[in-house]
Amino acid sequence: MKAYKSMSKEELQSLKAELEAAYIDAKGKGLKLNMARGLPSAEQLDMEADFFNTLNPMSEFHSEAGIDCRNYGELMGIAEARKLMADMMEVSPEEIIVFGNSSLNIMYDTVARSMILGVCGSTPWCKLDKVKFLCPVPGYDRHFAITEQFGIEMINIPLKEDGPDMDLVEQYVNNDPAVKGIWCVPKYSNPTGVTYSDETVRRFAALKPAAEDFRIFWDNAYAIHHLYNGKEDKLLEIMAECKKAGNPDMVYKFCSTSKVTFPGSGIAALASSIKNIEYVKSIITIQTIGHDKLNQLRHVRYFKNIDGMKAHMKKHAEIVRPKFELVLGTLEREIGELGIGSWTKPNGGYFVSFNALNGCAKKIVGMCKEAGVTLTGAGATYPYKKDPDDSNIRIAPTFPPIDELEKALEIFVLCVKLASVEKLLEQ
Amino acid sequence: MKAYKSMSKEELQSLKAELEAAYIDAKGKGLKLNMARGLPSAEQLDMEADFFNTLNPMSEFHSEAGIDCRNYGELMGIAEARKLMADMMEVSPEEIIVFGNSSLNIMYDTVARSMILGVCGSTPWCKLDKVKFLCPVPGYDRHFAITEQFGIEMINIPLKEDGPDMDLVEQYVNNDPAVKGIWCVPKYSNPTGVTYSDETVRRFAALKPAAEDFRIFWDNAYAIHHLYNGKEDKLLEIMAECKKAGNPDMVYKFCSTSKVTFPGSGIAALASSIKNIEYVKSIITIQTIGHDKLNQLRHVRYFKNIDGMKAHMKKHAEIVRPKFELVLGTLEREIGELGIGSWTKPNGGYFVSFNALNGCAKKIVGMCKEAGVTLTGAGATYPYKKDPDDSNIRIAPTFPPIDELEKALEIFVLCVKLASVEKLLEQ
Repeated sequence: MKAYKSMSKEELQSLKAELEAAYIDAKGKGLKLNMARGLPSAEQLDMEADFFNTLNPMSEFHSEAGIDCRNYGELMGIAEARKLMADMMEVSPEEIIVFGNSSLNIMYDTVARSMILGVCGSTPWCKLDKVKFLCPVPGYDRHFAITEQFGIEMINIPLKEDGPDMDLVEQYVNNDPAVKGIWCVPKYSNPTGVTYSDETVRRFAALKPAAEDFRIFWDNAYAIHHLYNGKEDKLLEIMAECKKAGNPDMVYKFCSTSKVTFPGSGIAALASSIKNIEYVKSIITIQTIGHDKLNQLRHVRYFKNIDGMKAHMKKHAEIVRPKFELVLGTLEREIGELGIGSWTKPNGGYFVSFNALNGCAKKIVGMCKEAGVTLTGAGATYPYKKDPDDSNIRIAPTFPPIDELEKALEIFVLCVKLASVEKLLEQ
Repeated sequence: MKAYKSMSKEELQSLKAELEAAYIDAKGKGLKLNMARGLPSAEQLDMEADFFNTLNPMSEFHSEAGIDCRNYGELMGIAEARKLMADMMEVSPEEIIVFGNSSLNIMYDTVARSMILGVCGSTPWCKLDKVKFLCPVPGYDRHFAITEQFGIEMINIPLKEDGPDMDLVEQYVNNDPAVKGIWCVPKYSNPTGVTYSDETVRRFAALKPAAEDFRIFWDNAYAIHHLYNGKEDKLLEIMAECKKAGNPDMVYKFCSTSKVTFPGSGIAALASSIKNIEYVKSIITIQTIGHDKLNQLRHVRYFKNIDGMKAHMKKHAEIVRPKFELVLGTLEREIGELGIGSWTKPNGGYFVSFNALNGCAKKIVGMCKEAGVTLTGAGATYPYKKDPDDSNIRIAPTFPPIDELEKALEIFVLCVKLASVEKLLEQ
């Protein structure tokens, strides 16, 4: 294989004709494949069948503390569910509120609450002229959608191999009182798969925010979502670091079992300092009488404890890993030496992040779509859906069965090649 | 029995001594009984055991439309759950969004959304100097707590036998653009048990709000919660009336299965015009990827359809009715002729509303508490917890077993008598 950039115009033109023919052929197949979202596959979901026997007509519906989980109450979650989520989030149960089915919903409500009511007594953000959030990029589109909906100005921060550019983060957070938050997916980051280094976490913990109501939105969505045995990334626990650094109230941590049991039917939790937790409790006690305790009970009885949950995640990894290996193998084999793209090789999470030649991402995604392969929209991994380089594409390989994934990847690499050749010919 | 008001001072003093002795005796029993909240009893919850077999390891987890309910998606709810809730709420499925476990949560979020983002394009309420809500009283404490948390000014509207005082409602809504909403529990109202008359509903539908973003918050919590066969209250369906009156977008209806299946583990829904529903959808699509579809599936499979749900509610009535009859019988027998209180005799819902002599409610609730009987706090049924007459007490008879309820009612009538005698002696 020869790097495209070293090809002559004639070589590129002949290659283009060849690729165009293959693309027309591919379109003719009428495929309908989806690599857009980080969905577990049917095979993963089928694995959970026993979950539906955790509560049956003969069950005891009282919690260990004697709470009837079928009735109202227990706003903070039943004790054993708080314990399970605390162990998952590496904090203590008093630092946990177990919510409903969606950590995204907790994040949204946390921002909404700050907008209307402020943070632990600060001025409500809706009363301020300007509120800003830092957004490590590429990042999670649904985070950016929340801050966009509330009219919060988003500032791109490059995400590097060891986490966000901390020089920039410090510069903004420590000097600009309008900067109220930062979105982080610190482990197996969406979409790059990066895990923040210990130094990055310590620099986060040591921030000296200009705004007293600055908070780190630490979305640890893939805390236990490893792909390989013995090659697990380790993330320093940030709440402990913040305590050490004298910033105990600076973090909200979010987590859920959406990709452990069921997306939409898992349990989600917020972890934060006792002070923050008490404040949030004082607000949400008006919002709801409590979340679904029967589902909390199902989770606790299904996993028993965090060890059960971690053992379970190894079974998920068995199903998911071959799909990642197929993606990485295909990319390496097909375009490894062509100089038309780079990609991440994560040890966990749900995504591979692909960087095409600048100015090619939208085109590639559009061409794939025309050939029946849906990818996450180009630009989605940036605030306002604007990738300044038009380069980043998120690959979500978990959902399709492996034979469909193989076909989708064939189309993908074909489109990458064709778009790259066209780009190079323009120059 | 002689009316207290017709007794001489001496008679009252001798009666007081007698009641005080009985009260001291009662306190000595060390009771611990609770009539504070509208909770279903263990007997009602036990009845639902089969619910826990609706989804089992052998189940099909796809909806009728082929949606895998174990995975992400279907923000509006699966079609059959929208149908079930639409039938419960007497609207069409396109006018429904099925949410999570709590209609209170939907109401809270609906107000929160209006605060931050406005209503279908109107100015966000948080940007206005003044926002007001009308509050029919006595009413539901958790409604008032929401508007209080958001700093919305609450205006008391007397709730009469046929609904709120509509002259007052019209005067406020049609003239004051700061009036943005009204809290209604239109059927088996909390706490009075009143159902709004057809005329009241029609006058609601014919309002000409000064504010374009005025909405009626129609919390139909007890839509199918009848106590007696053949004595069901009928409530005119307000969305249809609003359409006829040219006000199709003026109502949000709320409902849940909290007191049909399980409080905390039911499903809740919002019903409104297609225009409102589309607007809400455009906002909540950022808040969450979807609600718990497995729980939607459980409900649909358990009840099959609205007839199944209604048949089921008759079984609830069998358990609940004797408790209401005990309350009404005890009040009638013990204080019916004493002229020291009046109360409602609802055909459904979860409460009996008791009006003591003015200035006695707090005292009665306090005395009951000291004797081991917890009632809803006096004043709770009014905005800002301020009952201007200090008269209204909400009795929630459903939770305690019938023998405990009997003991609690004994204490209650004793405290009513003693507080009334003391009041009359003060005069």
